[in-house]
Amino acid sequence: MTPKGKLIPVGGAEDKGTDLEEGFIQRNNLNFFELGILGRIVAETKNTKSSKIEVITTASQIPEEVGENYLDAFEKLECENVGILDIRNREDATNPAFVERIKNCDAVMFSGGNQLRLTSIFGGTEFLRIIKQRYQEEEGFLVAGTSAGAMAMSNTMIYEGNAAYAHLKGSVKVTTGLALMQDVIFDSHFDKRGRFGRLAQAVACNPGCIGIGLGEDTGMLIRNGNKMEAIGSGMVIIIDGHDMRYSNIADLSDGRPISFENLRVHMLSKGNLYFLEERKFVENTRPETIAAELNR
Amino acid sequence: MTPKGKLIPVGGAEDKGTDLEEGFIQRNNLNFFELGILGRIVAETKNTKSSKIEVITTASQIPEEVGENYLDAFEKLECENVGILDIRNREDATNPAFVERIKNCDAVMFSGGNQLRLTSIFGGTEFLRIIKQRYQEEEGFLVAGTSAGAMAMSNTMIYEGNAAYAHLKGSVKVTTGLALMQDVIFDSHFDKRGRFGRLAQAVACNPGCIGIGLGEDTGMLIRNGNKMEAIGSGMVIIIDGHDMRYSNIADLSDGRPISFENLRVHMLSKGNLYFLEERKFVENTRPETIAAELNR
Repeated sequence: MTPKGKLIPVGGAEDKGTDLEEGFIQRNNLNFFELGILGRIVAETKNTKSSKIEVITTASQIPEEVGENYLDAFEKLECENVGILDIRNREDATNPAFVERIKNCDAVMFSGGNQLRLTSIFGGTEFLRIIKQRYQEEEGFLVAGTSAGAMAMSNTMIYEGNAAYAHLKGSVKVTTGLALMQDVIFDSHFDKRGRFGRLAQAVACNPGCIGIGLGEDTGMLIRNGNKMEAIGSGMVIIIDGHDMRYSNIADLSDGRPISFENLRVHMLSKGNLYFLEERKFVENTRPETIAAELNR
Repeated sequence: MTPKGKLIPVGGAEDKGTDLEEGFIQRNNLNFFELGILGRIVAETKNTKSSKIEVITTASQIPEEVGENYLDAFEKLECENVGILDIRNREDATNPAFVERIKNCDAVMFSGGNQLRLTSIFGGTEFLRIIKQRYQEEEGFLVAGTSAGAMAMSNTMIYEGNAAYAHLKGSVKVTTGLALMQDVIFDSHFDKRGRFGRLAQAVACNPGCIGIGLGEDTGMLIRNGNKMEAIGSGMVIIIDGHDMRYSNIADLSDGRPISFENLRVHMLSKGNLYFLEERKFVENTRPETIAAELNR
């Protein structure tokens, strides 16, 4: 079933306008706040600046600080109808007031932190069921998530994997994510933390999954669970294992170095598109051609 | 012209047997000293344990310490005919005693450090000309290099490029290397330092070059400038841009994020082969099949 809502996974460390306040000029010249990730998230919600956005800080160990940061950032974007869902355990997740709020918002935003907190706290809850149902059925509903919040979006979720050992079998730990999508694996902080090896290992285990490595301050706007548009200042790496030939991953014992032949890799930046079903890179970066491609 | 010698570029941090002394069990179970990189280098030299090996510490800022480490490590391998060429500037490089030694050794080993020291000190010298000529003409001659010593082996040499900004045009700095090989680009510490983006950018600039990302304690034994065998405990990433379709790298201004479509990527571990001219991954990992493949 084709979902009607939108998903925006973000690689973490999205610009929240704090550098701008300090007069700091970003080295990366696409990294200016007004056109950034959070602005785009607001623009993609049903009622833009007047949308009700609920920020879910559950992944974080410092939920109050994280919540304040998002309130500040959204306020700078003149988006003031924002709430914080400070859910810290499974009991909180069943709180009827929170469940009610999730039924009535226009968008949810999962903060960063530890993705295992997201799955272990929300897995099997009515709260999560409502988010997934609204994403499936409601055209205007948007689910965004950054860092841990992005990693948890698929049914396959990486939760651990030291980049330096990522070429050793078994060093990349995977479990069941929140499953808003299937057949993709998201990784975050992809540029800063050198995660090519770990995402490649996850893809090599089952090349039916497409690896999507999200750089910091970079995300994918995903429509209908299929058409993806790169947004933000950095890069997104797509790892497609469908044409993989040799791979030793099934035959090795744990801890031995893996090898494989023939991954297909694309690097996307702002405006590039990727169509998941066709496994197709589309280069168009002008707004009018993006719109035309997405409406095809 | 097909070179007759052997090249062994290594990704840095090759095992020197010091952990073994301390009774330390490596997490990576291929990483045991006796079968490691340095042992293989010795085995591949003309006269194995009695070969004369000259270690060139020029890339390092702490040449005495680095030299001592190699003397210790080779001694553990019962290889005691090892000299240190402590060349610190262009004047040292013209020292007739050093030039004479480079004419008479069986192998040279370039230490790690700063690859720009290698090119700026050896570029255009008789010392380098002799190494290149011997590598071209003498079947028994071996040139090894680790980290900076590996990066400098090709004519295209990366000398700078922060991994976190490697998706921005112009952030990867390249110059002319020692040119023992052509049409490849070596990168080192590939696992630990997250260098996929920078090597991909270097390849995208001219897809005629094959990117070879060497993990730590991992190398490639290269015969005839063509047939490569992965050695050591980690992984080697091959980035082949020949089938690259879209790329924006020519049209962007500096500092803007690059994008491209369709790199082909292989991951090799110990025993896997790669044939450069055919751009072909060969999986065979048993010694007898490796020998058969290499002799085809």
